[in-house]
Amino acid sequence: MRLAEAMRYATLGGGKRFRPFLVIEAAALFGVPPLKALDTAAAVECVHCYSLVHDDLPAMDDDDFRRGRPTVHKRFDEATAVLAGDGLLTIAFEILSRPATDPDPAARMELVLGLARAAGWRGMAGGQMLDLEAQGRRYGLDDIRLMQALKTGALIEFSVDAGGILGRGSPAERAALRAYARAIGLAFQIADDLLDVEGRIEDIGKATGKDAAAGKATFVSLLGVSAAREMLSSLGRDAVEALQPFGSRAAILEEAADFVSNRRS
Amino acid sequence: MRLAEAMRYATLGGGKRFRPFLVIEAAALFGVPPLKALDTAAAVECVHCYSLVHDDLPAMDDDDFRRGRPTVHKRFDEATAVLAGDGLLTIAFEILSRPATDPDPAARMELVLGLARAAGWRGMAGGQMLDLEAQGRRYGLDDIRLMQALKTGALIEFSVDAGGILGRGSPAERAALRAYARAIGLAFQIADDLLDVEGRIEDIGKATGKDAAAGKATFVSLLGVSAAREMLSSLGRDAVEALQPFGSRAAILEEAADFVSNRRS
Repeated sequence: MRLAEAMRYATLGGGKRFRPFLVIEAAALFGVPPLKALDTAAAVECVHCYSLVHDDLPAMDDDDFRRGRPTVHKRFDEATAVLAGDGLLTIAFEILSRPATDPDPAARMELVLGLARAAGWRGMAGGQMLDLEAQGRRYGLDDIRLMQALKTGALIEFSVDAGGILGRGSPAERAALRAYARAIGLAFQIADDLLDVEGRIEDIGKATGKDAAAGKATFVSLLGVSAAREMLSSLGRDAVEALQPFGSRAAILEEAADFVSNRRS
Repeated sequence: MRLAEAMRYATLGGGKRFRPFLVIEAAALFGVPPLKALDTAAAVECVHCYSLVHDDLPAMDDDDFRRGRPTVHKRFDEATAVLAGDGLLTIAFEILSRPATDPDPAARMELVLGLARAAGWRGMAGGQMLDLEAQGRRYGLDDIRLMQALKTGALIEFSVDAGGILGRGSPAERAALRAYARAIGLAFQIADDLLDVEGRIEDIGKATGKDAAAGKATFVSLLGVSAAREMLSSLGRDAVEALQPFGSRAAILEEAADFVSNRRS
């Protein structure tokens, strides 16, 4: 079926799988085996991929390439891309509400509520709206920070928090994890802005230099490359510090913070 | 905020509110007061309105008017319409997962799972895909029936079933309600097809004659007006019969079946 095919194309064509990684590794801090976190991880990735499919639409960011392949609306058509995004967003909630995700309905409920908040109008969708409105306005650093916190930060924070929900983390442990997530979420965006300025299309699989061409303010355009790099390093340190309560168990999440700060694609 | 404004425009601009009505009246069969069913009813209406916003997009059905007003992408723009639909779909799951919707997390879970299935790729979104693919193909009666069952039937069935979930209906009661819902869901679509042929834009607030112009097969084009009218009456009787176990408590849902069969807008 065409719709299912487009949904598979949108999700199974590579990508870093950074958010599912965060779900699985955050859950692992509490001894949750990877397979038990996999459904939640898949749900988060479906939401991430839905957002890419819709953001790439001609009426939005109008991107023809993603992960080195034609975007969904280029490979299929616009109507199919709209529906594939809708289908991916919806299936995420279907996955989370199934007993296989977590035997406790109250925990599944918390996952659904958290994902809906992270993805919705006060989260990712709201951030994309702010991003679209940025064209032709003079966004300052606070505006960019808010936009980023909504557009990419909220789902990254939820990914890590979901691991804490699955692992029955204490309020203090979950707060620590969310602080980690906020640091790497912001770092992720700054690294993205740097790549848009400095990256090569061969490495990152999508067009570069788009922000500058669109006259959009970014962390890099407002701070300059060198201050942005500094902020990135400082956020990496914040992230590692937030993980202290978990000791050496958090080694992989620490490496992830390094990866975010130093990524080339 | 522009996105919230568009979401309000899409949901609070009238419409029959047929699905929320079904949630509330089905719940009332079990003594659930309307206010206790209101959150669930609102969630279902958000999903219905999201589907209208996306279906109206230029890449989909390309409709400029809905409920006698410009569609969301005409009143705002396409990007905002995509995001407003996304936001409405997401907020539905946020609403359903909040404790105010039902004190029992297992019941909320069943609502989320049911709504996700009704709305997703094997439900409403899948039905819209089949509808789009119908252009230029020769759909027969079985194809049209499947498309309708997915595109409009699934959400109507869920609306009624949601009342049964909120009311803690027995499996037999819930099966009876779903049989009622399937009959009125199909009747609703046939009435829609008849209105597209016979209705006046002044009454129904959107363009008419679109199906014929697009060369699309409908119940009416395949059966003819008179046989379609007959099928409509027969479905009305099926719907009333399915309600028998509830006796006179179901009087309002019986009237709803009449309304569906005889609607003029």
